[in-house]
Amino acid sequence: MKQVEGGVTAAKGFLAAGVEARVKYQNRKDMALIYSETPCAAAGTFTRNLVKAAPVKWDQKVVEESPFVQAVVVNSGIANACTGGPGMECCRAEAECAGKLLHIPAEAVLVASTGVIGMQMPLERITAGIEQLVREKKATLQGGSDAARAIMTTDTVPKEIAVETVIGGKTVTLGGMCKGSGMIHPNMCTMLGFLTTDACISAELLKKALRDDVIDTFNMISVDGDTSTNDTVLLLANGLAGNEEITAPGPDYDAFCQALRFVTVYLARKMAGDGEGATALFECRVVGAASKQDARILAKSVICSSLSKAAIFGHDANFGRFLCALGYSGVSFDPENVDLYFDSENGSLHIFSQGCALDYSEEEAAKILSAPEVTVTADMHMGAEEAVAWGCDLSYEYVKINADYRS
Amino acid sequence: MKQVEGGVTAAKGFLAAGVEARVKYQNRKDMALIYSETPCAAAGTFTRNLVKAAPVKWDQKVVEESPFVQAVVVNSGIANACTGGPGMECCRAEAECAGKLLHIPAEAVLVASTGVIGMQMPLERITAGIEQLVREKKATLQGGSDAARAIMTTDTVPKEIAVETVIGGKTVTLGGMCKGSGMIHPNMCTMLGFLTTDACISAELLKKALRDDVIDTFNMISVDGDTSTNDTVLLLANGLAGNEEITAPGPDYDAFCQALRFVTVYLARKMAGDGEGATALFECRVVGAASKQDARILAKSVICSSLSKAAIFGHDANFGRFLCALGYSGVSFDPENVDLYFDSENGSLHIFSQGCALDYSEEEAAKILSAPEVTVTADMHMGAEEAVAWGCDLSYEYVKINADYRS
Repeated sequence: MKQVEGGVTAAKGFLAAGVEARVKYQNRKDMALIYSETPCAAAGTFTRNLVKAAPVKWDQKVVEESPFVQAVVVNSGIANACTGGPGMECCRAEAECAGKLLHIPAEAVLVASTGVIGMQMPLERITAGIEQLVREKKATLQGGSDAARAIMTTDTVPKEIAVETVIGGKTVTLGGMCKGSGMIHPNMCTMLGFLTTDACISAELLKKALRDDVIDTFNMISVDGDTSTNDTVLLLANGLAGNEEITAPGPDYDAFCQALRFVTVYLARKMAGDGEGATALFECRVVGAASKQDARILAKSVICSSLSKAAIFGHDANFGRFLCALGYSGVSFDPENVDLYFDSENGSLHIFSQGCALDYSEEEAAKILSAPEVTVTADMHMGAEEAVAWGCDLSYEYVKINADYRS
Repeated sequence: MKQVEGGVTAAKGFLAAGVEARVKYQNRKDMALIYSETPCAAAGTFTRNLVKAAPVKWDQKVVEESPFVQAVVVNSGIANACTGGPGMECCRAEAECAGKLLHIPAEAVLVASTGVIGMQMPLERITAGIEQLVREKKATLQGGSDAARAIMTTDTVPKEIAVETVIGGKTVTLGGMCKGSGMIHPNMCTMLGFLTTDACISAELLKKALRDDVIDTFNMISVDGDTSTNDTVLLLANGLAGNEEITAPGPDYDAFCQALRFVTVYLARKMAGDGEGATALFECRVVGAASKQDARILAKSVICSSLSKAAIFGHDANFGRFLCALGYSGVSFDPENVDLYFDSENGSLHIFSQGCALDYSEEEAAKILSAPEVTVTADMHMGAEEAVAWGCDLSYEYVKINADYRS
């Protein structure tokens, strides 16, 4: 497996575009299209928030009921959440407009939105945007890159990646793009993620692969603990790589899952590191846990803790805050038996053992914590299970962004 | 029942003091003593964090096993948490020192600490502080007020209150003090709360009264979602009011609980409103819930949401964030059937109904949200149960305080 250039257009047969539709933002791309020349199997994971945006409801139905999927229309600026009946009608109108122009059924069109909650969508500008997207779609790196820019809200950088692997003697490509960067606490974050592959794989296994993957990738990141109304990850597979269809677990499926994991971990880390106002990626690795689920809960509790996040922002080796977050996670353990370590490109430090702080240099600790990617490792000494969670520090900028997000 | 002047020294027989012991802070009071002239029944509720500070462990044992309690020694600056064996030895030494000077058993002395986690306590300064406290203790308003100041960390104001009520023909007084203001998410916040009363009530009913009370008071506040290692609320009753001992539920017990509730709600609101960096008290009232527990979970989810807190700081009527927080709370409800209201001293507004925003003035909404106490009410239309939770807005100052708390 190797990383290759590009994102959602890296796999064979996928075209994309990003345009300025002025949905809410001005002078920037705010609508994206992903289109496959041939029908795709589709898998999706969606927010578990009870308040679900209209496009989430639309996509859930499409992924469950449609025989195939061939396009995804995305806008930033307005989330089409808490918009009642008019919001659902807008989804249908989007899908019908794209379907007509692309000569595919409306039920083969997925839609996704991110932005302000509670505002109604400007349907005329949306349909004009779709017309432009269909005209400009292309199978080039530029097409994918335009789309990755168009889905950004408070993100500071676009996030895309692609990998190649060999499955059944054929080169299979899997690419993806996603956006953060606030209201990120995927239970399934508004994260939106779009993954495309030319692998030939049954819809059933595609869904299993995505479902099993997000538990340890997108669901292990948090920027602010708020689970969005719009979280959506979609995975489209058009089969153009020509490998023998993957219909059962085995080496081919494993190779596919490995490629998927590489792409989703990359995107998840990018999303966390580019969290609203973030100055650092804050990774927590829990090892020696009694169960995998314990390890996940412990790691996520640490990266979600406001005080731990503020300590990372301050480059402050306030390890008690990390222990405190482990302690209120709900997982049972012996605090006297936990070892804590700090790691970054600036060095490594064993900071806490057997219930007490070790004799460490505050200066060295501060140096380690001032790197752009910081890892706190907790060894629970209870078993062999591990998990990693990704968050970011809590900065003045986060507050600023969110105190006047709508203006 | 009426509010009277004072705090922990308002009830008969209670003395208090606050002194400068230089535990960690300089030039401010940082140790407090509460002392009752006669033995007290005691009740306590403590952090449910698995990582429990040494004084929490000490107090749990005392409250469970000691026949009576007569003194509480408190310090700010260092939390005596994550301090292993030496931390426990320090608690014993504190209790022994105070016991000897006050001529009471060490097992009748409760201890509490708040401040930095992981640092060992300077025992010599602590014992010198206790000597000074015992010399300076007094039954005056000043004594209580000195104690209330000494327990502050990042609090901007001391928090104390007292009420009088009549039980069995006798005037009974109940007073209290507490401190916030970060790592506040009591499951039982570091909140520390100390309540004193001259009511005559059995230890068993005293414990029941406190246990039943905190569920809807201290446990319904959050500043940052971090449940401290040190949370402690202690309630001491010395019986000097001379009422017939309350040994069973009934009108006397109800009158006592009502006085307790008045004091704890006052202190809980003060703590939330004085949360680290807070510019406003952020109250969420959930009505029409199917169960009391649902109402509590929903209300707390809203006041804990970083994005909702940031919206309050920005005076931004971003109601979708409140709905979003209700939606991920875990409680089941129909989002199309929720009504949302904003209230403050600046006015009232019905903002969301039947799945859509109502036609409201952004200007009016911003005015309402710019008051020092803001209430968001959610009517779930599912039943008759209600709950109230108290938090605060999320400001630049919160980040500043916590990015360099130890320096």
